[in-house]
Amino acid sequence: MSISISADRPMSLEELRGALQRFASEREWDQFHSPKNLAIALSVEAAELLEHFQWTTEAESAVLPPNQQAKVREEIADVLLYLIRLADKLNIDLLPAATEKIQVNAAKYPVVKARGSSKKYTEL
Amino acid sequence: MSISISADRPMSLEELRGALQRFASEREWDQFHSPKNLAIALSVEAAELLEHFQWTTEAESAVLPPNQQAKVREEIADVLLYLIRLADKLNIDLLPAATEKIQVNAAKYPVVKARGSSKKYTEL
Amino acid sequence: MSISISADRPMSLEELRGALQRFASEREWDQFHSPKNLAIALSVEAAELLEHFQWTTEAESAVLPPNQQAKVREEIADVLLYLIRLADKLNIDLLPAATEKIQVNAAKYPVVKARGSSKKYTEL
Amino acid sequence: MSISISADRPMSLEELRGALQRFASEREWDQFHSPKNLAIALSVEAAELLEHFQWTTEAESAVLPPNQQAKVREEIADVLLYLIRLADKLNIDLLPAATEKIQVNAAKYPVVKARGSSKKYTEL
Repeated sequence: MSISISADRPMSLEELRGALQRFASEREWDQFHSPKNLAIALSVEAAELLEHFQWTTEAESAVLPPNQQAKVREEIADVLLYLIRLADKLNIDLLPAATEKIQVNAAKYPVVKARGSSKKYTEL
Repeated sequence: MSISISADRPMSLEELRGALQRFASEREWDQFHSPKNLAIALSVEAAELLEHFQWTTEAESAVLPPNQQAKVREEIADVLLYLIRLADKLNIDLLPAATEKIQVNAAKYPVVKARGSSKKYTEL
Repeated sequence: MSISISADRPMSLEELRGALQRFASEREWDQFHSPKNLAIALSVEAAELLEHFQWTTEAESAVLPPNQQAKVREEIADVLLYLIRLADKLNIDLLPAATEKIQVNAAKYPVVKARGSSKKYTEL
Repeated sequence: MSISISADRPMSLEELRGALQRFASEREWDQFHSPKNLAIALSVEAAELLEHFQWTTEAESAVLPPNQQAKVREEIADVLLYLIRLADKLNIDLLPAATEKIQVNAAKYPVVKARGSSKKYTEL
């Protein structure tokens, strides 16, 4: 039935968090949702997303055919859903964590040193 | 310098999307940010997150020591940042995609059939 | 037809390497087999293998039902085949590389310090 | 000390399997080496390998600088070592499994249909 999961507009991150709690609770799936298992599931979903790009060129990957675009959209959604669920189980707020991290990254890769070089990723 | 990335409160998903655009633009990194490469980076970050749980038990994974909790929080942030960036490059809105997917999942795993069984994941 | 890939006994690593070369050559797939793409494929196969364990307990993972054991065996084979292919493209000999690495690991994790502790993985 | 792990020539797969058994036994690490945990470790190592290619072009990935080639060789070795260990724990013989799988693949992707097309990977 799952009448508790419905929406006529996009949910917010906070609403998705609540919907995922109800989703697991109704199915008695909390027993499977240890952070360890959710981290595995997240990694598996990220690989399913990556699979769509494994034999494409970089240029092709920027203009997906509609059929593939729809599938990639679903995989991206799955990654986000598991990420929200994992963060919830660990009591981590996603937006503050991401806001702080982008500031850490900005300090780690100063514009003047990083400009135009992919070396920053590996050597800085 | 990176004066363009600053915030005194958590950014929204939309603000993070804009901040990541400026971050890449200032460093001339758009040339590296094909969807293919971003999907690789997302998958690598998800594995770095998973690495923190690889030798823990499920029970241990639910109560991380503060030091590990802080690292996991950073990895979760990295996953979200690459997910936002990848979705942006593919013109995919995260919240509508996730809202639709949770509804698809609710229809796919009816409460009555899925209750208490991890089989649903593999056999339904 | 693929008559060139046949065997009435298990192939050696060296024979598998040759068989994979013929396999790709006959299908004109060398154009897709850059080390980058093969490393993606390897990672995707490793995740497909991991997927079989994502909701099992550790104890369950040690005694798989026959159906799942057969699938896991196929995924393990896929990982090995891509690993052989990637190593071949990079002119890396698998057995010397693995022999040297296990000796490096033995020096890195001395018995006396590592005994019975999973900390060695993360802190040593 | 780890005097039991030594070799003046490359070990065979069978010898590596035995060396890994002794390695874990000496350190009392069998308690951590459930198939589930080993599958996680394998996936994490595959991602560490992939990380070396994440910002390279396909062409660059075929001619690595010596420093990166040496690191990639170590990551490839780590993947093989965990694969041997996981297969051992599941009583799976690697070479017969891989030999059978390449024959399955040859039947699945007939030369005449697959030639020159990466579609075979996703659509056949």
